Amino acid sequence: MKNHIVVALLFIATFTQAQEALFGGQQVSSPELNEDNSVTFRLNAPNADAVQVTGDFLPSEKVDTPMGQMDGPGKVNLIQEKDSVWVFETEPLDPELYSYSFIVDGFKTTDPANPFLIRDVASVTNIFIVPGKQADLYRVQDVPHGTVASRWYDSPGLEKERKISIYTPPGYENSTEEYPVLYLLHGAGGDEEAWLSLGRTAQILDNLIAEGRAKPMIVVMPNGNVGQDAAPGAGSEGYYTPQFMTPETMNGKYEANFKDIIDFVESNYRVKADKANRAIAGLSMGGYHSLHISRIYPDTFDYIGLFSAAIMPRDDKSGKGVYSNFDETLKTQMDNGYKLYWIAIGKKDFLYKANEEYRAKLDAMGMPYEYVESDGGHIWRNWRVYLSDFAPMLFKD
Amino acid sequence: MKNHIVVALLFIATFTQAQEALFGGQQVSSPELNEDNSVTFRLNAPNADAVQVTGDFLPSEKVDTPMGQMDGPGKVNLIQEKDSVWVFETEPLDPELYSYSFIVDGFKTTDPANPFLIRDVASVTNIFIVPGKQADLYRVQDVPHGTVASRWYDSPGLEKERKISIYTPPGYENSTEEYPVLYLLHGAGGDEEAWLSLGRTAQILDNLIAEGRAKPMIVVMPNGNVGQDAAPGAGSEGYYTPQFMTPETMNGKYEANFKDIIDFVESNYRVKADKANRAIAGLSMGGYHSLHISRIYPDTFDYIGLFSAAIMPRDDKSGKGVYSNFDETLKTQMDNGYKLYWIAIGKKDFLYKANEEYRAKLDAMGMPYEYVESDGGHIWRNWRVYLSDFAPMLFKD
Repeated sequence: MKNHIVVALLFIATFTQAQEALFGGQQVSSPELNEDNSVTFRLNAPNADAVQVTGDFLPSEKVDTPMGQMDGPGKVNLIQEKDSVWVFETEPLDPELYSYSFIVDGFKTTDPANPFLIRDVASVTNIFIVPGKQADLYRVQDVPHGTVASRWYDSPGLEKERKISIYTPPGYENSTEEYPVLYLLHGAGGDEEAWLSLGRTAQILDNLIAEGRAKPMIVVMPNGNVGQDAAPGAGSEGYYTPQFMTPETMNGKYEANFKDIIDFVESNYRVKADKANRAIAGLSMGGYHSLHISRIYPDTFDYIGLFSAAIMPRDDKSGKGVYSNFDETLKTQMDNGYKLYWIAIGKKDFLYKANEEYRAKLDAMGMPYEYVESDGGHIWRNWRVYLSDFAPMLFKD
Repeated sequence: MKNHIVVALLFIATFTQAQEALFGGQQVSSPELNEDNSVTFRLNAPNADAVQVTGDFLPSEKVDTPMGQMDGPGKVNLIQEKDSVWVFETEPLDPELYSYSFIVDGFKTTDPANPFLIRDVASVTNIFIVPGKQADLYRVQDVPHGTVASRWYDSPGLEKERKISIYTPPGYENSTEEYPVLYLLHGAGGDEEAWLSLGRTAQILDNLIAEGRAKPMIVVMPNGNVGQDAAPGAGSEGYYTPQFMTPETMNGKYEANFKDIIDFVESNYRVKADKANRAIAGLSMGGYHSLHISRIYPDTFDYIGLFSAAIMPRDDKSGKGVYSNFDETLKTQMDNGYKLYWIAIGKKDFLYKANEEYRAKLDAMGMPYEYVESDGGHIWRNWRVYLSDFAPMLFKD
């Protein structure tokens, strides 16, 4: 018995020491959420001359870029305390999922005390949640949970196996019920992981369904870059630096072969395979894809959501591609009818004007839609809200 | 048409600028795998006085700890080039999945040019793969892929829903076949994500199955910390600093309620629900769990794998807990018979002696086992190899 205790102690002590974090690692708590919803950042960097935190909880700053001045995340200095730890405490923050980075002597990096990170294209930032209100939809709550599967589907049209993320609602596995399907598309630089990690889709759906605000539904998150088989690091290309624009992303191939995804879903899941039970929505480039997919499959979706959509009709003068006959197919879609064509954009979005022009085009042809204008720009904070607002409107009898 | 091009260009240019990476970010390529399998690290930190890289591709170094001198990952200096970028090129490296961090003026952090990271307890490090030989099992190859599902199962015994990771082999969804099951358990500080991220389980199984070396099987990766409902950040506790030892990890509750997991798997998946088609294996604490679960369910598993097992019998003198009657239950397990009891450990593992003593105990009671001794210590590099060697021995007729 004594021997066992010695081994147990050795085990715990040795392991604790063996953690890489302790070889020159952090011993501070960061970020710390205080009672008044202020947040304290701490960094143990005794040799640094200056430490800043930059994140979307700070007022945005103008940054010089080759395109002129643009809004970038704000920055603020941490103050070094006697014990060498750098500290900054925010004002009380509104409920939200925030992201941030540290800048140590001009070098931008992650917070070593915070293991929670999200990747946006090639950038990895730390995250934290200030709970309450809308942000409670982003938290894992004590409610029934759906399943997230990371699968590969065969695309005969694209001649390859491709990765796809699929959310099935709580209870899916233990029922015989058939479910409606939301196809949810990412933006440029994203992939099949983006809506799950940056968009908190599983948490939002779990919570909306638990509250009875959204119908139980399957959410299908494909990869919209047909040049990829999967997200960076998850596919046959191995590890490489993700790019914002990947080849073959907006050349019509994705839209033309979207039927492979629908076929896969409808032959692999218990779904209601009719127009009334199909929705498609996407952010930015995914809004562009949703616009085009819904018109070239003009009798397929009863619910269409364009979130900060990149409006680029790309009329194809050859008349052969999926971008040809834009007005004709849109009119066919309108004539076939649908229950909801939902357009949302932020007042400060650089695509605001393009969306305004697109709405004018719809108005001119008498094509009905609903329109929501939010604050802010072309940011995930808006897309999480749009999903939270869009999902409850779907599949109502 | 012109307008569309302008919008497209604006879209691409604005987005590229809007990437957070470009607000003070990195423009260097790191790590870069060279033709001779050497690797070049680069860091853009013009104001730094000293930059080092530390990782498991370098010879280990002795580090002073309260437990005495221990092996830690080696360190080496980067040299600053004229253009302010710091650089280090390794010798040609053997094929392997490596992890590393930068140390900038004594501050340990991630490589901002490399978005590929893994979390080990509370430490996040960058990773890269030098391909070839064993390491090719860790890469996503152009072979049929299984599905990885992140689900929640109900544990009546623990009175909560808990998260679990499940790998189903290629073709599972489109067959009527029943499959054998490997229950694969993580170590202390790990969770239901550890074998997938650090252990490369999905890649190893995909590749072994494609080569015909392993039978198609389901791999079930539960969370062995019964105080948690899910991995840090994925459960109802939200974001917090993961600990190496969590409460209620080695108190018998996990072992006692393991039947909830088996029941869940066998009622939710097409499995061959008999002893000949059940295997259980785990690393470190998961080896401890596998040892105890297999003897307290003494006629349940035909294959048992102890990878660098924490051997702590914890004989319960009360005679009531799962740790009581150790020798008796072990003998029952032996008498019931099994096909493989596999013990593997590294020569430098701090649990080497405890495993040696356990083997002596098995020898004394005549309990058969197979034993493999590898180089190295208590590290994931060994556990990936053990899984790669163990899986092909399972479920052979």
